Amino acid sequence: MVRPSEDELIARWCAPLASTGIGHRDFGDDCCSVDAPENCRLLVNVDTIVEGIHYFPEDPWDLVARKAIRTNVSDLVSKGAEQFAYMCSLCLPRDWTEESMDLLAAGLSADNLEFGLSLLGGDITMASGNGLVVSITMFGSVPISATVPSRNRAKPNDLIYVSGVIGDSAIGLHLRRHFPLSNKLDSTTTKYFLERYLLPRPRTRLSPIVLKYANASMDISDGFLVDLTRLCRSSNLGAQLEKPVPVSKEAEIALNACPELKRDIVAGGDDYEILLTVSEDKAEDLEREARSVEVSVTRVGRIVEWSGSERLLDLCGEYDLSSRSQSGMGFQHF
Amino acid sequence: MVRPSEDELIARWCAPLASTGIGHRDFGDDCCSVDAPENCRLLVNVDTIVEGIHYFPEDPWDLVARKAIRTNVSDLVSKGAEQFAYMCSLCLPRDWTEESMDLLAAGLSADNLEFGLSLLGGDITMASGNGLVVSITMFGSVPISATVPSRNRAKPNDLIYVSGVIGDSAIGLHLRRHFPLSNKLDSTTTKYFLERYLLPRPRTRLSPIVLKYANASMDISDGFLVDLTRLCRSSNLGAQLEKPVPVSKEAEIALNACPELKRDIVAGGDDYEILLTVSEDKAEDLEREARSVEVSVTRVGRIVEWSGSERLLDLCGEYDLSSRSQSGMGFQHF
Repeated sequence: MVRPSEDELIARWCAPLASTGIGHRDFGDDCCSVDAPENCRLLVNVDTIVEGIHYFPEDPWDLVARKAIRTNVSDLVSKGAEQFAYMCSLCLPRDWTEESMDLLAAGLSADNLEFGLSLLGGDITMASGNGLVVSITMFGSVPISATVPSRNRAKPNDLIYVSGVIGDSAIGLHLRRHFPLSNKLDSTTTKYFLERYLLPRPRTRLSPIVLKYANASMDISDGFLVDLTRLCRSSNLGAQLEKPVPVSKEAEIALNACPELKRDIVAGGDDYEILLTVSEDKAEDLEREARSVEVSVTRVGRIVEWSGSERLLDLCGEYDLSSRSQSGMGFQHF
Repeated sequence: MVRPSEDELIARWCAPLASTGIGHRDFGDDCCSVDAPENCRLLVNVDTIVEGIHYFPEDPWDLVARKAIRTNVSDLVSKGAEQFAYMCSLCLPRDWTEESMDLLAAGLSADNLEFGLSLLGGDITMASGNGLVVSITMFGSVPISATVPSRNRAKPNDLIYVSGVIGDSAIGLHLRRHFPLSNKLDSTTTKYFLERYLLPRPRTRLSPIVLKYANASMDISDGFLVDLTRLCRSSNLGAQLEKPVPVSKEAEIALNACPELKRDIVAGGDDYEILLTVSEDKAEDLEREARSVEVSVTRVGRIVEWSGSERLLDLCGEYDLSSRSQSGMGFQHF
């Protein structure tokens, strides 16, 4: 069988995903020109997803592609930026098929539409191993006048909020790894969690609100506890945890059936919710504006001065931090 | 053995490579801000290199890292852009060592200095296979007023030039694959080719001259013949080859010893020389200015109208195109 060349791959599966009019002239050229919209600054994020690390070998490539897009969009949302275009670098396994490439292109195309994105360029090479590797460089913008909420801008007494619900994706991952658990859940609930693992939902509607109100912000990708610890470390502060993280109705059902999942909820990762800190006097406005775009935000704690001991204090007795080492709190690749 | 966490990896090996003052505030944050210099437009390139495809498993990680940097810089040079910063996504094999990471950081550091670069951010994950994967997003700039020489801007009667010499790296690769050949070459010559394969030399000094004179331009990464064919196809034109490509003294020695290398010279790839087309009335100025920065440019042919047959015509009888299929002309990953 004659395999398509790199040029044919680009012409067939990539070029149709490019649109014109945002500084890009010749898809397949070596470089692309990227202009932030007028009076805006460019923010860039790079995230790579790898078979066996971020997804399972049997996952369909449309969902793998969409996960790669969405993890990057989520990072931009956490900085209050609006995504507009991306570049994509693919390492294809030797056993790639045209059907898989059709799926991958369909996934990118669906998310181009969903998130207003255009593919600007990238490259395609063979992988050395068996798994697909998708590396995305995502471009977004914020108004020049805005102060971007980085991880290190939390202030003492800031209130800590999370968007949406935490832990659904981690339960989905748990189900993938330990399928016997699914005996305790009905098929609809099981399906819900599996989908939440496969297809993140970046909180794009929250983006301008994050920019307006957050002092510090990041997305939760490696687990609530480890990511909050990172935010605190960057800001050289600590956090009091005053309430349990919000969970979905489905997660409550799962927790009733399997109480041991409690740990996965706050340590499992792949949430792609926003973790942000806000001055107490702006908290009400934040909550109101988040409601107006139909995204829930829940206050879970408060930033405090750090005394040099543990970064996180469990005031509500829900987190059982004492029994965990720092490295056991979140998703670690290493 | 306790392996360092992702945070520790970033703190130890990546953060020291970041410099401040170009829009970057908090290394290790989710996104970074990228600003082109004043009155300049941003150009971006993404290229990934993979063990077993772009380098050998035994190659030291400092040279692998530098190859990744340099292939990206070369793409920017071919558009007349000046590189200034990059993001780096690493997929580490499970057997990575601290010594290898030291090497990788040393390689990036050396090329930061060599090319005036700063590391802005990126991510680190585990690879699913055994090999290291390095994906670089490289940022460069051109003056806003400039017309960037894309692949598709060649004009009929343009003269075709290549920079430097062609084929050294391909001979280096040939030596790596078929070591018996080295019996025919002395150790100094062998070492020369091996180094030319491992460490590309992007033609950064040529960049402003490319921008000033080239109609179409690209770098030669997959082989002179296949890349010239791509340039012609993008421009919907053809090319007459009037002279053999320039080769090094070392390549002449190798060709005398092993005439079968002739094919590798024009089809082997990894040259990272610039292939450009220029109007005939500007050719003399191009040559003079290239001499002034001590980079040779050699005229090898002419762009012609395309009649719908083969894109390339071998007028000098040096290229033996007739016996080759299009797909046999260059480096193909697939």
